Amino acid sequence: MNYEKINLLMTEKKYTLLKTELANTQPVDIAEFLNGLDEKQALIVFRLLHKEIAADVFAYLSTELQAGLSQLVNEKELSDILADLYFDDKVDLLEEMPANVVKRILQNTSEVERKLINQFLMYPENSAGSIMTIEFVSLKKEMLVEEAIEKIRRTAPNKETIYTCYAIDAKRHLEGTVSLKDMVLSSPDKIIKDIMVKEPIFVNTHDDQEEIAGIFKRYDLLALPVVDHEQRLVGIITIDDIVDVIEEETTEDIYKMAAVQPTSEEYINAGVFSLARKRIVWLLVLMVSATFTGLIIRSFESALQSVVVLAAFIPMLMDTGGNAGSQASILVIRSIVLGEVEFKDIAKVVWKEIRISFIVGITLAVFNFLRIYFLERYPFAIALTVSFTLFFTVMIAKVLGGVLPLVAKKLKLDPAIMASPLITTIVDAVALLIYFYSAIWFIGIEM
Amino acid sequence: MNYEKINLLMTEKKYTLLKTELANTQPVDIAEFLNGLDEKQALIVFRLLHKEIAADVFAYLSTELQAGLSQLVNEKELSDILADLYFDDKVDLLEEMPANVVKRILQNTSEVERKLINQFLMYPENSAGSIMTIEFVSLKKEMLVEEAIEKIRRTAPNKETIYTCYAIDAKRHLEGTVSLKDMVLSSPDKIIKDIMVKEPIFVNTHDDQEEIAGIFKRYDLLALPVVDHEQRLVGIITIDDIVDVIEEETTEDIYKMAAVQPTSEEYINAGVFSLARKRIVWLLVLMVSATFTGLIIRSFESALQSVVVLAAFIPMLMDTGGNAGSQASILVIRSIVLGEVEFKDIAKVVWKEIRISFIVGITLAVFNFLRIYFLERYPFAIALTVSFTLFFTVMIAKVLGGVLPLVAKKLKLDPAIMASPLITTIVDAVALLIYFYSAIWFIGIEM
Repeated sequence: MNYEKINLLMTEKKYTLLKTELANTQPVDIAEFLNGLDEKQALIVFRLLHKEIAADVFAYLSTELQAGLSQLVNEKELSDILADLYFDDKVDLLEEMPANVVKRILQNTSEVERKLINQFLMYPENSAGSIMTIEFVSLKKEMLVEEAIEKIRRTAPNKETIYTCYAIDAKRHLEGTVSLKDMVLSSPDKIIKDIMVKEPIFVNTHDDQEEIAGIFKRYDLLALPVVDHEQRLVGIITIDDIVDVIEEETTEDIYKMAAVQPTSEEYINAGVFSLARKRIVWLLVLMVSATFTGLIIRSFESALQSVVVLAAFIPMLMDTGGNAGSQASILVIRSIVLGEVEFKDIAKVVWKEIRISFIVGITLAVFNFLRIYFLERYPFAIALTVSFTLFFTVMIAKVLGGVLPLVAKKLKLDPAIMASPLITTIVDAVALLIYFYSAIWFIGIEM
Repeated sequence: MNYEKINLLMTEKKYTLLKTELANTQPVDIAEFLNGLDEKQALIVFRLLHKEIAADVFAYLSTELQAGLSQLVNEKELSDILADLYFDDKVDLLEEMPANVVKRILQNTSEVERKLINQFLMYPENSAGSIMTIEFVSLKKEMLVEEAIEKIRRTAPNKETIYTCYAIDAKRHLEGTVSLKDMVLSSPDKIIKDIMVKEPIFVNTHDDQEEIAGIFKRYDLLALPVVDHEQRLVGIITIDDIVDVIEEETTEDIYKMAAVQPTSEEYINAGVFSLARKRIVWLLVLMVSATFTGLIIRSFESALQSVVVLAAFIPMLMDTGGNAGSQASILVIRSIVLGEVEFKDIAKVVWKEIRISFIVGITLAVFNFLRIYFLERYPFAIALTVSFTLFFTVMIAKVLGGVLPLVAKKLKLDPAIMASPLITTIVDAVALLIYFYSAIWFIGIEM
């Protein structure tokens, strides 16, 4: 879209031209433009929108502007918007709005719909129920294809998708799915029953959205039916919502890998206290566990005192160990998420990491030895101690990094918590123990 | 699907029953089952499949089994599979197969298609051209809706999607898109021109797949047309391929965050040497840069010698600094990827991180002081030095973590390289400098 042109038309108050320009603009782009305006200006532009796209634009607005406009528009406008909003967007809207706006919206909603909304608001977060929509096409399996197409034609404007339709019986039990493609391809006098998929894939209202995203990916679906505990069809989930779920779940995983408690707020809009709180807990836990490394160092204090130069290599050893471990753990965590690796593969993962870490460990240790001994001219025993420690630290870090996420998964914990920060803390302690014992051995110092 | 039942039918050689069972099974599930068999068994089962789904199943098989079956099946079977494969799957297949199989496949492909395949193989990796397919429905804009539907009906079986169709002129220039929904909704005697979207969103063959995924998400698309440099329609991209692109790009980002060079191989199937190579480079770079911290410690050797207990807190300070920095950097990297934050927001990010790190830093420093001074009974000056360093390390780590990914983006580098490992290395050095200087100041030791 042409922001400059729209901005110019806006400031010059050329509203007729602006209206034409907006008619050729995508709803999400209009919404982004409106989000940059103050409420009153936004209202002026919003009123220029064609009725068909006004609700689409509204669904994409920021929560603040949705609340603002909901209060500024008149009753007629509000009920027009609400009538055109898809049901899932309406439920999302009500979840976000302040109480006074919710009240106003519910007053503009029919009794039947109010009941349905209440039911939807009660589905657990991240469940199929919380992301499904009720705007699907239901058919009877005895219908002729031409009758079905006629029904689709009649009801299509209010449906989120018409490309997959659902055959249900008198009690709304799901009996099959039929794609518009198959209807278009078959002759008009065929019966739905004969062209429908009889054992369609479906999910239950309480199934988790992450698993559902997995089903969409596995079967390349555009939509998926949702049934309640009595196998009645209550909604469908469409691929566009699943794309959002995939992003959301990935963000959550990445946050956990960085030892941040997950949140659905956008970073840039989230409050400072909220963000601080999400980060403090893990930092405290990790800080306290890092004091074990302090205890280890203290118990080797006299060794360190006699060869204080040993301290100079502690950061390098710890960082390299941490990085080596986090490489392995993050690769394995991602493989678990993508369904490529399971707990039963643990021996395979260990064997793989042993071989990788052997190659990586030897390379780093040799490189490190050459540098310390020949370039920086440290004594042989120190170069040996450091390189020996480096090799075993990398080995242990990578094997732990590979194993711990799988163990977490087995214990029904989220594998993502076994990412870098936790691995680093464990590897640090191990590295220091190897370091001091090998120093005592190779350099011949006393404890 | 019912693996046990299928397995049983297989071992008992009840092929007629097996055939019926497979007819009710999803292609991707059958492929997974076949991937677990040896080539000869797989061939037996593969030959039981209905012709309509054989190609679908084939597309989901592992590369090894595809190569194996391509050599075992006879000419007729191979050309049947190839005829039913979607064009993009066929191109993917050729990219993966060994030379002798490629030769056999190309012998079973028409001259026209061979030329087209060669052209497709030349599109750069990760470009629109490399993920698009040619199986779309093209219409003339002068057609009546009923003619268009008739054409769709005729050609649909070979099309990857019929839900969005494309109006082109005599020179194949893209003129508009029209959805099957709009055609079903409009009266049959309308002209395509009057119901099509006249300025549809499109991409060019060389556009990057990550940007294209962004367009799909932004506009909730099911398919997107691809044009060449002369604006001729050459293909379309469908949402199922975009879901794969999103996963692939996320995996790449996560790998980079963990200082692993990205690869498209699955972890569990990748070779040990290949995995080791992907990890060594960054470990070496980070190891060498970690020697700066060694130099810092060496230059404060006499200070450390006189108060050797200072060494005990180095791991805790460095880990906490690294974790605090990686929290900020990973949140900002993810926000950049999701398009929520740009370089122009840098002041906002800095201000946010200053406030967050102040809260987090004070909390950790106070907690740490209480623990060291009251619980572990270290001298006041040491408790003060450690807590003071902790506070400023957290502040600097978080601000750097927030800023560096944005700077990387501005410099056209991938923000993901500014994740934990690199931040940790920088923060380590800063933390040590603060630590030793404040030790000299608070404890009164000499350098």
